[in-house]
Amino acid sequence: MEYCVTTKNNDSWYIGTNDFDLFKADKTEAIMFQGNGYLGIRATAEERNLNERRDMFVAGTFDAFNDEVTELPNLPDLLNMEIVINQRAFSLSTGLIENYHKHLNLKNGELVRSFDWLIDGNRISFKFSRFVSMSDVHLFVSKLEITSDQSDLSIKLNSGIDGQYSNSGTQHLVEGDKRLFDGKILQMQEKTQQTNIGFAFNVTQKAYIDEVLLKVKPNIRMDRRQIFDEYNVDLTKGEKFTFVKYANVYTTIDNDVGHDTISDISMDAIKRSSLLNYDELLNKSTNAWNINVWQRSLISIDSDDVKPQVAINFARYQLAANTPKDSRMNIGAKGLTGEGYKGHTFWDTEIYMLPYFTFTMPEMARNLLKYRYLGLDGARKKAKANGYWGAQFPWESAWSTDGEMTPPWGSVDIVTGKPMRILSGSLEQHITSDVVIAVMQYLSITKDERFAEEMGYEIILDAAKFWASRLEWDPARKKFVIDNVIGPDEYKEHIDNSAFTNYTAFWCIQKAIAVVGLLRNSNPEIYNELNLRLKLDDAYQDWISKVDLIFLPKPNEFDVIPEDDTYLQKKIIETTQYQSDGGHAKIFKDYNLQQINDLQVTKQADVLLLVFLFEDLFSDDIKLANWNYYEPKTTHDSSLSFSTHSILASDLNLADKAYDYFERACEVDLGTGVGKSAQGLHMASIGGIWNMIVEGFGGIRVLDGQLRIEPHLPSKWNSLHFEINWHGSLLKIDVYKDTFQVSVLGDAITFINHNEIYHVAANSKIEIPISIEVNVED
Amino acid sequence: MEYCVTTKNNDSWYIGTNDFDLFKADKTEAIMFQGNGYLGIRATAEERNLNERRDMFVAGTFDAFNDEVTELPNLPDLLNMEIVINQRAFSLSTGLIENYHKHLNLKNGELVRSFDWLIDGNRISFKFSRFVSMSDVHLFVSKLEITSDQSDLSIKLNSGIDGQYSNSGTQHLVEGDKRLFDGKILQMQEKTQQTNIGFAFNVTQKAYIDEVLLKVKPNIRMDRRQIFDEYNVDLTKGEKFTFVKYANVYTTIDNDVGHDTISDISMDAIKRSSLLNYDELLNKSTNAWNINVWQRSLISIDSDDVKPQVAINFARYQLAANTPKDSRMNIGAKGLTGEGYKGHTFWDTEIYMLPYFTFTMPEMARNLLKYRYLGLDGARKKAKANGYWGAQFPWESAWSTDGEMTPPWGSVDIVTGKPMRILSGSLEQHITSDVVIAVMQYLSITKDERFAEEMGYEIILDAAKFWASRLEWDPARKKFVIDNVIGPDEYKEHIDNSAFTNYTAFWCIQKAIAVVGLLRNSNPEIYNELNLRLKLDDAYQDWISKVDLIFLPKPNEFDVIPEDDTYLQKKIIETTQYQSDGGHAKIFKDYNLQQINDLQVTKQADVLLLVFLFEDLFSDDIKLANWNYYEPKTTHDSSLSFSTHSILASDLNLADKAYDYFERACEVDLGTGVGKSAQGLHMASIGGIWNMIVEGFGGIRVLDGQLRIEPHLPSKWNSLHFEINWHGSLLKIDVYKDTFQVSVLGDAITFINHNEIYHVAANSKIEIPISIEVNVED
Repeated sequence: MEYCVTTKNNDSWYIGTNDFDLFKADKTEAIMFQGNGYLGIRATAEERNLNERRDMFVAGTFDAFNDEVTELPNLPDLLNMEIVINQRAFSLSTGLIENYHKHLNLKNGELVRSFDWLIDGNRISFKFSRFVSMSDVHLFVSKLEITSDQSDLSIKLNSGIDGQYSNSGTQHLVEGDKRLFDGKILQMQEKTQQTNIGFAFNVTQKAYIDEVLLKVKPNIRMDRRQIFDEYNVDLTKGEKFTFVKYANVYTTIDNDVGHDTISDISMDAIKRSSLLNYDELLNKSTNAWNINVWQRSLISIDSDDVKPQVAINFARYQLAANTPKDSRMNIGAKGLTGEGYKGHTFWDTEIYMLPYFTFTMPEMARNLLKYRYLGLDGARKKAKANGYWGAQFPWESAWSTDGEMTPPWGSVDIVTGKPMRILSGSLEQHITSDVVIAVMQYLSITKDERFAEEMGYEIILDAAKFWASRLEWDPARKKFVIDNVIGPDEYKEHIDNSAFTNYTAFWCIQKAIAVVGLLRNSNPEIYNELNLRLKLDDAYQDWISKVDLIFLPKPNEFDVIPEDDTYLQKKIIETTQYQSDGGHAKIFKDYNLQQINDLQVTKQADVLLLVFLFEDLFSDDIKLANWNYYEPKTTHDSSLSFSTHSILASDLNLADKAYDYFERACEVDLGTGVGKSAQGLHMASIGGIWNMIVEGFGGIRVLDGQLRIEPHLPSKWNSLHFEINWHGSLLKIDVYKDTFQVSVLGDAITFINHNEIYHVAANSKIEIPISIEVNVED
Repeated sequence: MEYCVTTKNNDSWYIGTNDFDLFKADKTEAIMFQGNGYLGIRATAEERNLNERRDMFVAGTFDAFNDEVTELPNLPDLLNMEIVINQRAFSLSTGLIENYHKHLNLKNGELVRSFDWLIDGNRISFKFSRFVSMSDVHLFVSKLEITSDQSDLSIKLNSGIDGQYSNSGTQHLVEGDKRLFDGKILQMQEKTQQTNIGFAFNVTQKAYIDEVLLKVKPNIRMDRRQIFDEYNVDLTKGEKFTFVKYANVYTTIDNDVGHDTISDISMDAIKRSSLLNYDELLNKSTNAWNINVWQRSLISIDSDDVKPQVAINFARYQLAANTPKDSRMNIGAKGLTGEGYKGHTFWDTEIYMLPYFTFTMPEMARNLLKYRYLGLDGARKKAKANGYWGAQFPWESAWSTDGEMTPPWGSVDIVTGKPMRILSGSLEQHITSDVVIAVMQYLSITKDERFAEEMGYEIILDAAKFWASRLEWDPARKKFVIDNVIGPDEYKEHIDNSAFTNYTAFWCIQKAIAVVGLLRNSNPEIYNELNLRLKLDDAYQDWISKVDLIFLPKPNEFDVIPEDDTYLQKKIIETTQYQSDGGHAKIFKDYNLQQINDLQVTKQADVLLLVFLFEDLFSDDIKLANWNYYEPKTTHDSSLSFSTHSILASDLNLADKAYDYFERACEVDLGTGVGKSAQGLHMASIGGIWNMIVEGFGGIRVLDGQLRIEPHLPSKWNSLHFEINWHGSLLKIDVYKDTFQVSVLGDAITFINHNEIYHVAANSKIEIPISIEVNVED
């Protein structure tokens, strides 16, 4: 396992680099991203560099340019510090740089960059520190320290708000007022072109020599979309220049402030913030990180190799930094870390990220699921537009209520010159099942009856209505089939009876039938209300009449479940050379999509995802047979693929494979693959890091509402310790080589281990020996 | 006189630099601008650099962002070449650069940049050459040559179309199709957001080793708003790699092609262009420069100092490169050389640039004046909206028929936080006179009766209607006054009876009266037609009743004409310290606009412009008195100021002042003032270079329809030679120390010299001695 970042003194809470390559910076910019779920800033430098991607986003502030789908606008830059010393413009590419260190403290999100700049015979020491606050989500504070023991310095510093950035050339923001308040607060207001979301950005700055606040009045510099303070400071040899920049951003869709007055509110806020110094504000943020994130659930790995612990710390840091607490918005496929996928949300949240939140921060999971509830109207519209009933969830979604946001047209086929239709928005229909899977998992783990009654049941029932209407009768098979979809294997478009799609549709209808039964018996009031709105009596009859006639692709004579109606009849090729690191699609160098459609090649876990998620439907033999069949045919062109493979390999006791896929998943972002994270981090793969450790190595699973614990500790690890919530109790699970312990804080719980049911009394502990039959790996 | 550029071997046709400072490049980017009046490209480097302003514009393609006024969109970049050699990304800021030369050949607009790149122990020689074609205005061709005598090179080159640029963050263009034709032509289409102007950009490229065309098929790289070819070439030590990039741009408002098919037309055009090599295409362009520009009129200075000749070559080059031949558009205050003033046209064209075109390329002058004719409807609307009759020309105009384009609001007063009203659009009303001045000058010089009848008279008459309706009766003075305007001295807002405004309004009405008289007598058919449309009979009565009652500020007891009603009562301060180089407004460091309003400080030639343009209304004594009064009070915060001062000083025999102002005018762009031309060249100041030489030192003037020639050769010059058109004849004027010659090619002409009338027979020559009474300078 090789990472592009190093730790500091083997401390798993620090990632960074002691080297810089300005032409490869776009990867570490994403990895050392800073955010708090509201505000996100890439780890570009304060001074501008070529090839940087200087992105700042606020979650949920979607806007459309012309007739494109909405995306998160790249906001005015608050990082900028333009430094001229002794007439020399500072840049990493002039003079010499020594002692370069750039490290992100994952514990509190502080990014520190320090180095010596050797120029014109002088050695000048720089230290930049900054953080996006976790205690005040609007706040971003940065600090610059400059000193030289060799000569006096004449420092010119320009710093402020720079709104000349865009989304790769596309500009969403209309310039509003630029103002100077009280002679010291810079403010810029902007609004989005079409969605009319207002922004107020504020900056106030303080300069010190040897801790003494300077009384210098900066010059104000304004240009189009720009407002800066210009400081001119003379520094005597040996003195330290310190510069602190307080910045904030407020929007008219913030749910914590009045919307009409963000100019005043944000200005008052920056005034209050600037009463405290950098360390005081950082301490508040550090406390918030501890309370909101780190104290919520421990996860620690005892291993000679620090990298797995770095990976899980990194994953939890990024999940916290990129997840909005506002249920009107969700986690983008790239979080807030880059322009990729326009900030849109996919099934990545439900299948790859929600397990972490549901098990450790149920209130966050609830927000993320409420987002789907708020999206029901859009999902109903989509269903209706396509001729179906119920709710068909959008493949890509942005603002909760805006419905389908998949761009209808993709890039142009450069040979024919015709734009290519993006089909996932209409054909990748399993997203509706994925939402139900996550809702059911949330209900099983939390027993949150209120959520079920207020939101969860309605999602499940309306999803089932969609699926029931989606089924088509096949007179030959005498079964209900689902034609013309895209499954998780996106290499295959327009396929019939995708195993993943059909099984999950069947399961959704089963769950809805169960919900109706439950409500009719135990909660008639709610049933009647839902029945009135959703016509449940009719729907129930429909489900009952169809559910047992749904065509479920059965394992063939070799126990292999066909991915779809025709997959197993297609040509088999050697796939090794096309195995990907989760990104670059090497197979397209030799085949075009039409040709790949005729091969037994799979982009990512598809049938394997099915047998992982619905393991109670399939025997171990079938799981192994499908692993052996599909795993060699999978290119992992989607970064979503590795974690499923790792967990399933753990389940199947394929320890080496499980660990190999674990490492490959960690390397999707943390690895050395150049350019891989330029468009942003792979949030689903990052969610998968937790899943692999807890669900794979930790062996945690929810099966038909029951908790199962069957750890598979990697041989390189001495022990694994983690915490999850179950039915309101906190479970601390310690996994050792030969045994594992479950300690319960709270009410008594039960769990299954190798088909045995274990009861753990309230606030007590149990220890169980581990015995694993190791499968022979190929 | 110091220039920021040098010549090559003292050749006045080359300007360039042997040094580079990436943090100061924005000035030379504008100076070495390449264009042909249709397409304009700043002289940024092929490889990207920090602080560059990578602008490309096509004249007239105005668009509005949101509710802003229109501007010229910054178009996708066609310059780009991203070069990696032996895994090293080429940049001027890595490795060492030696033998750096960058020169623009003013004769044909070819820009050549060559240097050695010392990297990893290798010396690699680069030469970039490029030109914007004058023979095919859509075409831009560039060439890269790389060679190394020291080692083999593995070259990776990305080159194509990059549409991620914007106007300082504002994006006008909506991305359209990106295509690859015939496996070798990259095409990108875009359109403006609001005005729906379509663009097609095409690039096709050829790579050679030692002149042998490579058959390599490049990889195609596409991203948002980008399409590139990627070449990978291995070069053996001593071989030369040559890369030629053919690029073009077509728009749906081009008047030389069908609009619906620019995709096909532009693709066919690039195919045809690429049949010729770089030198062949450059030769065609060079020929066009000779025929269209250089052969049209000679201007040569015999002096030990090459700089004046450089300045006039530079001026004529830029005037040709920035002036559209399409009468629906005009010359921007910054031409096509930068984002400043949004590509808008001001009085700069009529007062400072038209003399050059009218005297040397009358058909270009005619186009520029036709633009005002096409703008009459907009001017009428503006008059009507303000409660006036006739045509009130817009202070800022863009597309000919769009009317007033002055932004109503400027930057925010950073202290009060209130946006500041830009008043010039409503108050700087002398623009209407300025258009008439230029029309009259054109008619006097060319005797173009057809233009007069088709367009010129209508402009003059409708301007007079505006002025007559604009007058207000002052019962105290018993005169018609003009309250509440801004004159050329823009320091003073809301002033009454601006001398410049009142005199030119009076003069406009006088001219209109004369036109009516002329037409009634000699062209009743046209009169009747105009009378029908413009109600001339009524207007004429109105003019006659008012013209002699217009209040014209008279010289006071010291012969000083008051700039306005209150100027001479205001406080006088010492102005020397605020004298500007034509840009930075130093006075605002000590005074705000409200305070300056109460001082006898003048931004630019105002009364002095009046006495220069209407010298027949004022005696030499009055001119000198006003010079002595106003010149010391003028800060020259506008770059328009110097040329008027130089010419007037020549007229007044203040030879040192005349030459000093000449040098300062040349230095506005060519001088060393940092950042001065970042937003673009000062086209009016550049027009002024020709005016100072021909009208000032050459002593050419049109007075009441007559040509006057009274040269004032600078003492540093041995002789001056120039050509002008007069009534269809070509006049070659050779000025020596003690004598000057006028050679006529064509019909006989007459001119005035020191109140004597001289006749020169057809195709003959006259020589006249020069005698000048030198005024004592202070």
